[in-house]
Amino acid sequence: MIVVMEPDATEQQLEAAVKKVGELGLRANVIIGTERTVIAVVGEEREHAKEVLEVCDAVSAVMPILAPYKMASREVRPEPTCISRGSFAAGGSNIGVIAGPCSVESEEQIVASARAVKAAGATALRGGAFKPRTSPYSFQGLKETGLQMLAAARDETGLAVVTEVVSTEDVELVARYSDVLQVGARNMQNYRLLEAVGGVDRPVLLKRGPSATMDEFLLAAEYILNEGNQQVMLCERGIRTFESHTRFTLPLASVPYLHRKTHLPVIIDPSHGTGHTYMVPSMAAAAVAAGADGLIIEVHPDPQNAASDGYQSLDFGGFRATMDQCRRVAAAMDRTLGCSPS
Amino acid sequence: MIVVMEPDATEQQLEAAVKKVGELGLRANVIIGTERTVIAVVGEEREHAKEVLEVCDAVSAVMPILAPYKMASREVRPEPTCISRGSFAAGGSNIGVIAGPCSVESEEQIVASARAVKAAGATALRGGAFKPRTSPYSFQGLKETGLQMLAAARDETGLAVVTEVVSTEDVELVARYSDVLQVGARNMQNYRLLEAVGGVDRPVLLKRGPSATMDEFLLAAEYILNEGNQQVMLCERGIRTFESHTRFTLPLASVPYLHRKTHLPVIIDPSHGTGHTYMVPSMAAAAVAAGADGLIIEVHPDPQNAASDGYQSLDFGGFRATMDQCRRVAAAMDRTLGCSPS
Amino acid sequence: MIVVMEPDATEQQLEAAVKKVGELGLRANVIIGTERTVIAVVGEEREHAKEVLEVCDAVSAVMPILAPYKMASREVRPEPTCISRGSFAAGGSNIGVIAGPCSVESEEQIVASARAVKAAGATALRGGAFKPRTSPYSFQGLKETGLQMLAAARDETGLAVVTEVVSTEDVELVARYSDVLQVGARNMQNYRLLEAVGGVDRPVLLKRGPSATMDEFLLAAEYILNEGNQQVMLCERGIRTFESHTRFTLPLASVPYLHRKTHLPVIIDPSHGTGHTYMVPSMAAAAVAAGADGLIIEVHPDPQNAASDGYQSLDFGGFRATMDQCRRVAAAMDRTLGCSPS
Amino acid sequence: MIVVMEPDATEQQLEAAVKKVGELGLRANVIIGTERTVIAVVGEEREHAKEVLEVCDAVSAVMPILAPYKMASREVRPEPTCISRGSFAAGGSNIGVIAGPCSVESEEQIVASARAVKAAGATALRGGAFKPRTSPYSFQGLKETGLQMLAAARDETGLAVVTEVVSTEDVELVARYSDVLQVGARNMQNYRLLEAVGGVDRPVLLKRGPSATMDEFLLAAEYILNEGNQQVMLCERGIRTFESHTRFTLPLASVPYLHRKTHLPVIIDPSHGTGHTYMVPSMAAAAVAAGADGLIIEVHPDPQNAASDGYQSLDFGGFRATMDQCRRVAAAMDRTLGCSPS
Repeated sequence: MIVVMEPDATEQQLEAAVKKVGELGLRANVIIGTERTVIAVVGEEREHAKEVLEVCDAVSAVMPILAPYKMASREVRPEPTCISRGSFAAGGSNIGVIAGPCSVESEEQIVASARAVKAAGATALRGGAFKPRTSPYSFQGLKETGLQMLAAARDETGLAVVTEVVSTEDVELVARYSDVLQVGARNMQNYRLLEAVGGVDRPVLLKRGPSATMDEFLLAAEYILNEGNQQVMLCERGIRTFESHTRFTLPLASVPYLHRKTHLPVIIDPSHGTGHTYMVPSMAAAAVAAGADGLIIEVHPDPQNAASDGYQSLDFGGFRATMDQCRRVAAAMDRTLGCSPS
Repeated sequence: MIVVMEPDATEQQLEAAVKKVGELGLRANVIIGTERTVIAVVGEEREHAKEVLEVCDAVSAVMPILAPYKMASREVRPEPTCISRGSFAAGGSNIGVIAGPCSVESEEQIVASARAVKAAGATALRGGAFKPRTSPYSFQGLKETGLQMLAAARDETGLAVVTEVVSTEDVELVARYSDVLQVGARNMQNYRLLEAVGGVDRPVLLKRGPSATMDEFLLAAEYILNEGNQQVMLCERGIRTFESHTRFTLPLASVPYLHRKTHLPVIIDPSHGTGHTYMVPSMAAAAVAAGADGLIIEVHPDPQNAASDGYQSLDFGGFRATMDQCRRVAAAMDRTLGCSPS
Repeated sequence: MIVVMEPDATEQQLEAAVKKVGELGLRANVIIGTERTVIAVVGEEREHAKEVLEVCDAVSAVMPILAPYKMASREVRPEPTCISRGSFAAGGSNIGVIAGPCSVESEEQIVASARAVKAAGATALRGGAFKPRTSPYSFQGLKETGLQMLAAARDETGLAVVTEVVSTEDVELVARYSDVLQVGARNMQNYRLLEAVGGVDRPVLLKRGPSATMDEFLLAAEYILNEGNQQVMLCERGIRTFESHTRFTLPLASVPYLHRKTHLPVIIDPSHGTGHTYMVPSMAAAAVAAGADGLIIEVHPDPQNAASDGYQSLDFGGFRATMDQCRRVAAAMDRTLGCSPS
Repeated sequence: MIVVMEPDATEQQLEAAVKKVGELGLRANVIIGTERTVIAVVGEEREHAKEVLEVCDAVSAVMPILAPYKMASREVRPEPTCISRGSFAAGGSNIGVIAGPCSVESEEQIVASARAVKAAGATALRGGAFKPRTSPYSFQGLKETGLQMLAAARDETGLAVVTEVVSTEDVELVARYSDVLQVGARNMQNYRLLEAVGGVDRPVLLKRGPSATMDEFLLAAEYILNEGNQQVMLCERGIRTFESHTRFTLPLASVPYLHRKTHLPVIIDPSHGTGHTYMVPSMAAAAVAAGADGLIIEVHPDPQNAASDGYQSLDFGGFRATMDQCRRVAAAMDRTLGCSPS
């Protein structure tokens, strides 16, 4: 941690800041510069130390050197984490593919979707039973009935089931019916929920909040890891920017950044990340070329009649074409996308 | 709702879209323009209708005319809502002032803070007992013990207590000890929590999420109103932008905007909205001049030793000076700020 | 154009707005909705008409239907524009590759760079002679001497030269020495400069400003097209967002968006778009997979000693490896990247 | 400057970085931390040194300590700069008020505007003769004829004239007719133009670009100061964010920030900063309460028939009411707004 003093800091103010460093159990190195004096602080840094030093008199800024997360860091665990659960694998040479409708609407719809996405090469089925919706007047999901339909689709196809959990009290229920728990973007900083999914034996797909910095995203993952669950996948699904021609801005540079900073696999969501069906195929291919460890894509048997997110869903033909293109790009990157199509 | 067709839409595609409008129980007016054809849709719009029409063939865009929220709208209830609970009032000619530390740390600290902020003119006490923190390694609050300390400070000073609730299972507990429930920015779209606070007899201070649009913010309020609780205050606490010299960017134009769109009172948080103690006094005064119905300000007996947020907290002297300045600006606006100082 | 009236608009106010529509030479269709009245305006829309109607009494909003640009629009010219100049081609099946140092530093440096990037498969050479720099104290470029060095490198290698022009008075000079004129992001709305490059017989590489919307970007291109120069390439080089782990956020969804809206080719700059050398290879590959018509990449013989932008420049080996990877991805997309490496 | 090494940096890599520091004429202090080694660099920092060190092997980050601007810095010149020219003064206890139409449309319009804004208390007249417009099809200004009309309005009222210059070749012409030169937001990084206005004897109103950081803004001012012109006013006119209910987001915290970092006066533009007439009065008052040294406000005799920006212009009555309110707020801040109304 580097403590930068104000240019007009007095000797006493400098001493007070140095004393405070000592009280925090850290060691201070004072460096007198041409225009400013800085204190290089050595020792095991804690978030709290930064906050305390920032409010000392005549301290201009405190710059942390170390990342605030630990268990998620590649410095702690250099080799990449691969996630595997049933039919699904992400990380290493495998690019996992999670596909299916935004919402589970009926058993017929979800089973048909599961069959179609599996035939096109997907390795997991997505589908929302508990739906967090911006408006209280929108469709909120079929809840436990929806979970039972997902389980039926798994029985039918063997695909692992990925579904969202929105509340601590539902974690056990959702885990009973599914293989991977999704924590949605709106709940990325719902710490009680993160702690709850950190306590169950299921991989977690953690979506980035639309205004979360990378440190906030990795600290959210840290909440889960810290409870003992090491099976965390980071999902980039777009950030909120001034752009209005897309629903969110999908920053694919998150892939190389996260690969450098963390051992956790990175999944890209080109559906929410763009908000327009016509953009999904090219952004899915781009995600694979950027090095993503997985894709999560909205697919619906009849997007025009979907209960939600039809405007960003592929139909079965569109998904198959997208998979065919992505498979060729994956091969060009020496990786394997999903499973073989049938 | 206006449905804009693609320039090359065929007669059949136009008819299909018109038919879909009818199926949704709405009426279609087709207008043939010089370059584009549009369908003006009349009837009670629903969010779902927009989604359905967006995915019709050859539909280029669907533009809603009506706001998606209803109960929060000034069109539904033209007169402003005033919130009053114990010592606290916000709306109309009253500018409510909520002040106190970020976290409750000890009974001594919170009682001293309550006395000081009341003497300077505050009408409610803030203090966090349940603290949502970005890092799992940061101080997480004193929980129920903290709530008891807040209640003791209220007994001592008569100030209404405002404190955050982070989880549905805590709502009853927090309501027992406090006068106003705060829903934090991270939980603005935690819909279960919104529904839970919508079911209790306490005013709610709802903070805007740092990337929430105004429609999303008002729809979050709608979740609470829709459960029967009409006592909602909207708190602008800054948005995430590219600016890094402030913690968040505080957009004070939210005040005139919200006053035009909704009857709910608007509270400004210059502490989180700037993230720097030195900016708080001028932004508090600016908020009053912009027409805010209340302020929420972090005040700590000893910011240098605060458990959290010291870098954006005023000390007692700073708060008193800020109140004196804001009181003069409020008078210039023909409004009354907080209560008389002692 | 759709004019939305306020809910409490009077009959007179509606009539006044309708009258104004007529005065603008447009035709009004009034549609009485359940809660709002709207006027659908038919005729050739002009930007000015929108502004005029917006300030009529009781007008709540004016929503344009048509894009504000014309010559850049795919509606006007459906087939894609291919740009070709000397060794360089972009559009159709060709992916053009522009590579070279940020700044021209010496003849030795620029000739060595030209040879290396050509050997790796680049089809044009970049290099700045006039450098717009954020600080007046930074290196500002070699100016005409730099242009002469670029011309020498072209003579040596046959590569087309792409270089930036920052001022109207330099357009003729820069055109004399180069094949493609670059207008930088800072000058995207320097309309005098756009008009000037619109009057010369050289393709223009127009960079998107970091906060430009797509409409603003395409209207900037329109300034050039409107002067008679139809050879415009649109370069996405990243936008300013809250993210700080990259220099800019590179939104690759610009590629499918622009391909849908305009016939002009789209070039991606993964160097400025990320600001970090280690991210350039994966984002270059992602750009190709997203469908880009060209790449512009910073390459320097010795990035550690570059006069500018060393932190985002590839060295020769890094560029060759990036090209090899991108060529495989291009093949997977059925396109051809640059020229054959030697 | 602090150079942070990668955690796995070798002894040799550290030595190479230290050597490079020496070559730059700076002194290195190596501090071995618990997890990282950092080099504290002492000496007169230059932008270039940061770039060079960033690309050394095993360097993780370089964090500057000093601001990159010098002449604009309060560290160099602690007392605030006051700008005064004819009827206009900004800084110290004076809050300057610049008001008038977006575009000069006719002599009648500009003279009437000048009379009305002077009567309401404005101390300078604004009006655009050279208009940079997003679309080539929009009204581009009356050019020299417009300048002559501005001069006529000055002769009539004695108000100082503030008008925009968009190109180096016009600087002399515009200076001949006006008192303060405005550099618009789109040209904030048009360095040739900054240098040109730095060479004339006129105060400059420099508008912040909508995505400019504070460092970029102050470095743009530095370009002007560096040419010898010390009369620079910084104008905050809103930044581009995800918000769409305002044209730009107006961050009033720029006022206390700039007052801390620079001696130059700060002017607020609530017209462009909001884009809606109805928001201008409250944001003007908020700007005064935030400590602004001046306001620039669009006022038009008949906003419904304005050639540009009617949707954000006040009419004469609205301006007078705004001035009356702002004058009361200014008095509450112990400052004087504009001149006495008549």
